[in-house]
Amino acid sequence: MKKSLLALAILAPFAHADEGMWMPQQLPQVAKQLKAAGLKLDPNNLTKLTEFPMGAIVSLGGCSASFVSPQGLIATNHHCVYNSVAINSTKEHDYLANGFLAKTMGEELKATPGSRVWVTEEVANVSDQIITPAVAKLTGKARVDAIEKNQKEMVAACEKDAGYRCTVASYYGGLEFYRIKQLEIRDVRLVHAPAVGIGKFGGDTDNWMWPRHTGDYGFYRAYVSKDGKAADYSVDNVPYKPKFHLTPAKEGVKEGDFIMVLGYPGRTNRHRLPSEVAFTFDWNYPAFIQNSAETLAIVERETAGDRDAALKYAGLVASTNNYYKNRKGMLTSYQGSDILARKTREHNELKAWVNGNAQRRAEFGPGIDAVEKLIAQRDADVKRDFYYASSSPRLLSVARALYRLSNEQQKPNAERKSGYQDRDLPRIKAAVGGVDKTYVAKVDEALVLNSLRKYAAQPASMRNASFDAAMGIRDGMQLADLKPLLDKMYAETTLGDAKVRESWFGKSPAEFQASNDPFIKAAVAMYPDSLKKEAEEEELSGNIQQAYASYMKAKIAYMKTKGQAVYPDANSTLRVTFGKIAGRDKGADGTTGWTAFTTVQGVKAKATGEGEFNAPAAQLALIDKKQYGPYMDPKLKTVPVNYLATLDITGGNSGSAALNAKGEWIGLAFDGTLDSIISDWDFNKAMTRDIQVDTRYIFWNMKYVDHADNLLKEMGVE
Amino acid sequence: MKKSLLALAILAPFAHADEGMWMPQQLPQVAKQLKAAGLKLDPNNLTKLTEFPMGAIVSLGGCSASFVSPQGLIATNHHCVYNSVAINSTKEHDYLANGFLAKTMGEELKATPGSRVWVTEEVANVSDQIITPAVAKLTGKARVDAIEKNQKEMVAACEKDAGYRCTVASYYGGLEFYRIKQLEIRDVRLVHAPAVGIGKFGGDTDNWMWPRHTGDYGFYRAYVSKDGKAADYSVDNVPYKPKFHLTPAKEGVKEGDFIMVLGYPGRTNRHRLPSEVAFTFDWNYPAFIQNSAETLAIVERETAGDRDAALKYAGLVASTNNYYKNRKGMLTSYQGSDILARKTREHNELKAWVNGNAQRRAEFGPGIDAVEKLIAQRDADVKRDFYYASSSPRLLSVARALYRLSNEQQKPNAERKSGYQDRDLPRIKAAVGGVDKTYVAKVDEALVLNSLRKYAAQPASMRNASFDAAMGIRDGMQLADLKPLLDKMYAETTLGDAKVRESWFGKSPAEFQASNDPFIKAAVAMYPDSLKKEAEEEELSGNIQQAYASYMKAKIAYMKTKGQAVYPDANSTLRVTFGKIAGRDKGADGTTGWTAFTTVQGVKAKATGEGEFNAPAAQLALIDKKQYGPYMDPKLKTVPVNYLATLDITGGNSGSAALNAKGEWIGLAFDGTLDSIISDWDFNKAMTRDIQVDTRYIFWNMKYVDHADNLLKEMGVE
Repeated sequence: MKKSLLALAILAPFAHADEGMWMPQQLPQVAKQLKAAGLKLDPNNLTKLTEFPMGAIVSLGGCSASFVSPQGLIATNHHCVYNSVAINSTKEHDYLANGFLAKTMGEELKATPGSRVWVTEEVANVSDQIITPAVAKLTGKARVDAIEKNQKEMVAACEKDAGYRCTVASYYGGLEFYRIKQLEIRDVRLVHAPAVGIGKFGGDTDNWMWPRHTGDYGFYRAYVSKDGKAADYSVDNVPYKPKFHLTPAKEGVKEGDFIMVLGYPGRTNRHRLPSEVAFTFDWNYPAFIQNSAETLAIVERETAGDRDAALKYAGLVASTNNYYKNRKGMLTSYQGSDILARKTREHNELKAWVNGNAQRRAEFGPGIDAVEKLIAQRDADVKRDFYYASSSPRLLSVARALYRLSNEQQKPNAERKSGYQDRDLPRIKAAVGGVDKTYVAKVDEALVLNSLRKYAAQPASMRNASFDAAMGIRDGMQLADLKPLLDKMYAETTLGDAKVRESWFGKSPAEFQASNDPFIKAAVAMYPDSLKKEAEEEELSGNIQQAYASYMKAKIAYMKTKGQAVYPDANSTLRVTFGKIAGRDKGADGTTGWTAFTTVQGVKAKATGEGEFNAPAAQLALIDKKQYGPYMDPKLKTVPVNYLATLDITGGNSGSAALNAKGEWIGLAFDGTLDSIISDWDFNKAMTRDIQVDTRYIFWNMKYVDHADNLLKEMGVE
Repeated sequence: MKKSLLALAILAPFAHADEGMWMPQQLPQVAKQLKAAGLKLDPNNLTKLTEFPMGAIVSLGGCSASFVSPQGLIATNHHCVYNSVAINSTKEHDYLANGFLAKTMGEELKATPGSRVWVTEEVANVSDQIITPAVAKLTGKARVDAIEKNQKEMVAACEKDAGYRCTVASYYGGLEFYRIKQLEIRDVRLVHAPAVGIGKFGGDTDNWMWPRHTGDYGFYRAYVSKDGKAADYSVDNVPYKPKFHLTPAKEGVKEGDFIMVLGYPGRTNRHRLPSEVAFTFDWNYPAFIQNSAETLAIVERETAGDRDAALKYAGLVASTNNYYKNRKGMLTSYQGSDILARKTREHNELKAWVNGNAQRRAEFGPGIDAVEKLIAQRDADVKRDFYYASSSPRLLSVARALYRLSNEQQKPNAERKSGYQDRDLPRIKAAVGGVDKTYVAKVDEALVLNSLRKYAAQPASMRNASFDAAMGIRDGMQLADLKPLLDKMYAETTLGDAKVRESWFGKSPAEFQASNDPFIKAAVAMYPDSLKKEAEEEELSGNIQQAYASYMKAKIAYMKTKGQAVYPDANSTLRVTFGKIAGRDKGADGTTGWTAFTTVQGVKAKATGEGEFNAPAAQLALIDKKQYGPYMDPKLKTVPVNYLATLDITGGNSGSAALNAKGEWIGLAFDGTLDSIISDWDFNKAMTRDIQVDTRYIFWNMKYVDHADNLLKEMGVE
């Protein structure tokens, strides 16, 4: 009794989640809230990307991470290093199943080809240089081209600094642009991952769930050339020495503590139109869910009994399962909510405000009218191309990329389509070279065939004529007609050979045109139409950018009249979210609520000795012996595993460092609960909780299960 | 906040589970507690087995059940009718997957061969007639034989009343004996079972778990001859008209309500010696768990892709999984407990009390000394015979039963071994005839071979010489040696044919001895030694009975000095447990606790559309539409599914009716939570909760999902 009442009393001050994915430069605007929440650092320091702690935070592209030693050691989630573990695993050395630990730097393994570590060093508002007065007058493709030209020039100038990658990112749907300069580290190595029975404990069953007991951590190391520059992999490379790295918290965290998470959230949709909400939840997500279920079933069927093939597709399966559950969770939350009604009401209020005054009507009216029409058109295109998008054989996509590159390379570098410039070559080469690691022809064909039969069943108006011509698809073709077409192409192509793929780099368009490889021939045949389609898309895209920016400008102005600030949707740039460590007074049906922490006793209770709950025997023995060492929580009297916090995160935040009020490292964010993720569209203050793995659990496993004393010492844990 | 505090306030008066599986005749001893708990009926009426409500409670053998209509309709758990559904299922009519509903009596299906409904009509204390002064002087086998003789004579006299089955059951480990007279209904038919996606929703994952969302209900009907007597199946039979049947509660239950559960709990071990506790948890359960895991893996492997074979073994798989999880759960609770230390201390206190006085020492001392030695010997025998017990081919067991029956039938009926008397014939015939429904030679051989290779690897002293000789097993034989032996026997036997098996009924021992069937030959060869072993076991058993009774007498006397009553361990006889509907303030790691009820919203949240969580689409659509009808709980505002109560139940209670304070039907008990089941050995007041399926959920599914209006009308639900 006493304990429950105390827990409620502690809960009271922070029953609500804390909305806001703040750009570091916005933090002084919320300095008062940061101080009130308990931050001991100066909020003004958090804006400085080359100072502590921001200087320690990096992006892996799709995942976040941070430096945790002076020797370039990087902590992130197990699911972020998962592919690197999978491609290094064999029947003989099943690192996925058993874990991997480099006891010395010499034992570290190459990460997945194309792996990068990006260290953000500068962010500058360049809106006026991208949307110049001249650009502001343009529409459609001309506008997109002009924006792209300005972006490319700015990127090229910025990237004169060798080893850096620059981006010009769009905020508020194209209303503002920021130039982001990042050191791009290209030699990334796998240092440590626990056994999948720790790192992915609970598997897809527990994914997006609480109570949670996942040791979702893994370690990379960044390497540079001896002179400290970013460089391709080389045995001569040396560990990168970051200016700043995180240091482990001296004391463990407890419920009610301040917490902030620093990382690269990918995408939120909090400013979307009501029509986009309806299209997404009534059509797009249900279609995606159906597609994902089929993908999972096909990969399972086609890789059954073939551990090598299963390992190659382990990454795809993990990612598909992840989004599958995510989308289903969002649909459930949506179906029980008033989101669409409320978004519609808010949108109508905005329109009423715009129309309530001739000047506002003149400034914002056309943009809002246009954005509604243009979005409807884009949604129709997405619907039309849904099956087409997953009907391309993997090697056809490779062939199209290679042929496009060859064509682009006929132009001066600056005029090439972005993505095909000299700066993009290493990435393309790594991706094309690494296909074998995640590709089995039989599995690919089964996946393509499943999509293709649905694609082909559509009327010609829904299909892509150039793709049909290149593949030999005609009206009314069914599975039995399509399979021989694919069989022949998969049998005849030579692109399955990495050396052959490599040989196409640097060849002329004429050489491609002379090829007899079925996928190269298809790529060549589809090329003119694909450029035409791309131009049409860019026309639409330019118009949407223009209209959307106008709509966002109206929204910001309207919200200002109501005294409310607007922060931009997530766009894979560095953000900060802060709040409290906190349980919740609403749990699953049949439970009264959630505690903030789980413990190793929960690992023991869930462990089955097989499948998704296959905790290592050595770990279970430690729990039985209560061998907790210094990682025991003084109140819980055991080792904490995961904890909940009131933070605003989303996909891309995976691997983000969690820091306490002093900026010390206390965990890694890795998930949100299934009934929180609707916040990607509509922030739910009452329900949103994200999930961290406690550094004490990480260190406990490293110390006693995996004996990673070398790394604990390097991080200064002991 | 307010809601949570209220919930805690309600919880306070019944934070503890209510210990006690009371014999109905003991209820007046706890009348005060029953009244205080809220019972509105006269506790004295609960002792009358032929009155309401006890007259409505029946046993199915291994499961409990109750009459719920004047037409002999019987409600029990889905898992209790599971085998009947499975054996009636085919590829074309997959009643397991889709559910079964007889819209008329004519559509009802025969239940599993050998199915029985037993209605207890009389329980009498016959201790003095079983342990007569003459018997009290005997020891060992002579004692067992004398007790058995007295029992058989008493049973024979009792069963002169045709259609009745009588038992003389032992209580307090052989200290007391009661004669139980039961009407034995032999024509049992399957009336209704929901789809497995309702009836077994959550599958083995949720088994023994909370939160729970299982619609664990199903219906049989009892049939008798036109003149109202128990009879074999016949199309001319008519529904049995029970004197009493349960009626559905007019109002739904809520947290805090009185509840009592009436049924046939199988076995508890609360009076066991410390050495038995140690043997069970340190050796027997771990060995059982290993064996079960192997059984499950083998059945899965051998039935893969063969739905018919899988259906035949569905019952074995369900039951194995059930015990597997049960034993693992008990082991977990045990390992974290002080049970052995406490039992040892209590036992030593008892011995100190006995030894503290010459008279007590004289009366109880020898019994306690003896029981400790005898139990140690029995445990050693169990260990020795562990692999032997699962190494017999199913058809060898059948052959041995048939040959034993033939030998016993040479004697007058009264002198035959119990289990082989004329009264047992129908049951034996049904079991022998029904083998095909649950037997596939290939699967059986794989299971036997797995056990046999471990059996054969033991030294000869651990093996059974007559079994070795009959099977051709020699020292040092390994898998490769054993398989050909089995292959040959399985290939040559004709007992796989039901007609052949049937033809052996009534044949003489000489005819068996002349047979060339390998399993008949083995049965004949093993017979003399099996009688010898049986005699040895009976010698031990008689001595244990004598010593155990003395030990229990001492324990009862000692507890009386401490003012505590002792109720007997469960022994598959009718018992009553009462308490409150209540959640719990301790849930799984990461949660704050359990609410008393789950709801259909939890079904929706767990549903995956496949596997163990494959809720029917029609049911999910009803939840989406909130079509709750009169089955909505006024406070929960939705349909409740399962609820927790503080009751003392165990295996065998499955299907037991739950009644409210007025004796109205409110649910069916079907499970306990995994951290409750250690109570079989040591009642845990703080943690124990059992799980009921709410009648409102049963009726809601029947009304809207399965349209079983005929049955709802028959039960008076509407």
